[in-house]
Amino acid sequence: MVTTQRRAERARQVADGLRQRIVAGEVGDLLPGERALGEWFGASRNVVREALGLLRDEGLVERRQGVGTLVVRPKYGHGLDRLTGLAEALEGHGEVVNEVRAAETVAAPPSVAERLGLAAGEEVVHLERVRRLGGAPLSLDSTYLVADLGIALLGKDLAHRDLFALLEETNGIRLGRAEVEVHAVSAGPDTAALLDIAPGTAVFALDRLTRLPDGRPVDAEWLHIRADRLTLRATLQRGAA
Amino acid sequence: MVTTQRRAERARQVADGLRQRIVAGEVGDLLPGERALGEWFGASRNVVREALGLLRDEGLVERRQGVGTLVVRPKYGHGLDRLTGLAEALEGHGEVVNEVRAAETVAAPPSVAERLGLAAGEEVVHLERVRRLGGAPLSLDSTYLVADLGIALLGKDLAHRDLFALLEETNGIRLGRAEVEVHAVSAGPDTAALLDIAPGTAVFALDRLTRLPDGRPVDAEWLHIRADRLTLRATLQRGAA
Repeated sequence: MVTTQRRAERARQVADGLRQRIVAGEVGDLLPGERALGEWFGASRNVVREALGLLRDEGLVERRQGVGTLVVRPKYGHGLDRLTGLAEALEGHGEVVNEVRAAETVAAPPSVAERLGLAAGEEVVHLERVRRLGGAPLSLDSTYLVADLGIALLGKDLAHRDLFALLEETNGIRLGRAEVEVHAVSAGPDTAALLDIAPGTAVFALDRLTRLPDGRPVDAEWLHIRADRLTLRATLQRGAA
Repeated sequence: MVTTQRRAERARQVADGLRQRIVAGEVGDLLPGERALGEWFGASRNVVREALGLLRDEGLVERRQGVGTLVVRPKYGHGLDRLTGLAEALEGHGEVVNEVRAAETVAAPPSVAERLGLAAGEEVVHLERVRRLGGAPLSLDSTYLVADLGIALLGKDLAHRDLFALLEETNGIRLGRAEVEVHAVSAGPDTAALLDIAPGTAVFALDRLTRLPDGRPVDAEWLHIRADRLTLRATLQRGAA
């Protein structure tokens, strides 16, 4: 007998496998039928239905009457192997357009100053941008730049350019490395409204501190990324510490 | 005038900054008071209160009457720079104990067979484990291993050992690299029950495919990780593609 608990576990496994195939671009816009999916995953149709329900709740697929189950939108991979801006990572998938909500100099509050190795109250450049691909929001980026590199950016095309590329070009420098910390959180009402998702939807929250090659921190960012539109990818090597 | 919208945005920023400091271990178990936090972030007390509410909703902090705001539990970093097992990553933080829910050979369904480069129906080893640190669940791991490396593990101490180390020791091999894809999803009812969190809580869903140095895939895993207990870390280098 297949108990409810067992079925729920199988449904989770099928949902995991299907999500991975969808993100890998291995299924088209229209999913195979329940029978075919059941064969593929070695699962009953009840399990498949429950798995599709989980993926619907994630916003990854939707059922359309008389058609079947559709992938709502492609999910893009953003590499965690190399430091790239979002527009660089999504090159070829369409144009990333930024709605610039703030671009100004401010006195760094102690929390930001410490992160950038400055004294509290020193001038920094604050940028707040909602990034869109094909019109729909991808992420909400709150950025603090050190003044000596950031001020030159205030007159630049912040709506269409990646910050990393702009920082390098405008100032004639190269960036070095960034430390990234990835959280998964439920979007609060404000973040949800800006990202056009339901409050409580799971999103990535990234802290990213970018440094020059000499180690000096120059760019402290806090990003909220729609997890139904982006996945984070990495290749990890086994080996000595 | 500070509008509600502006306050919500500031609250998000303060929550982001405070989360990062908590995870970095830079605040103790008891958070500073609202006034001190307000000065730290250059924000009003109303903003600080709203930010603390967001972090309470994430399960990161809790308010205790007459005491203040407490960090519920430390959040651990799991590096995305190098391929390590969870127990290896958490060394020094306590013992990771695995509740082994399944350890058996099964006929690979097509979905798993394809991922491991096998024919559908070939024998694979399936492991399902709930991993705990200090008694509380950290993650739910569903693993499929190729039979020639996996079967030898069925008699081993799966409750207390990392799979990567066991695979290497038992079979006298070294693992090579893994491709990891990170999603943020809302936990379904089954996953939530196994991880002891409320349904709908944001969790990480990881697909990880681990290969031998020659590229052969040997270990296909789907992990659900409690995002209130673990954060994912990486250092990214800028540079040529």
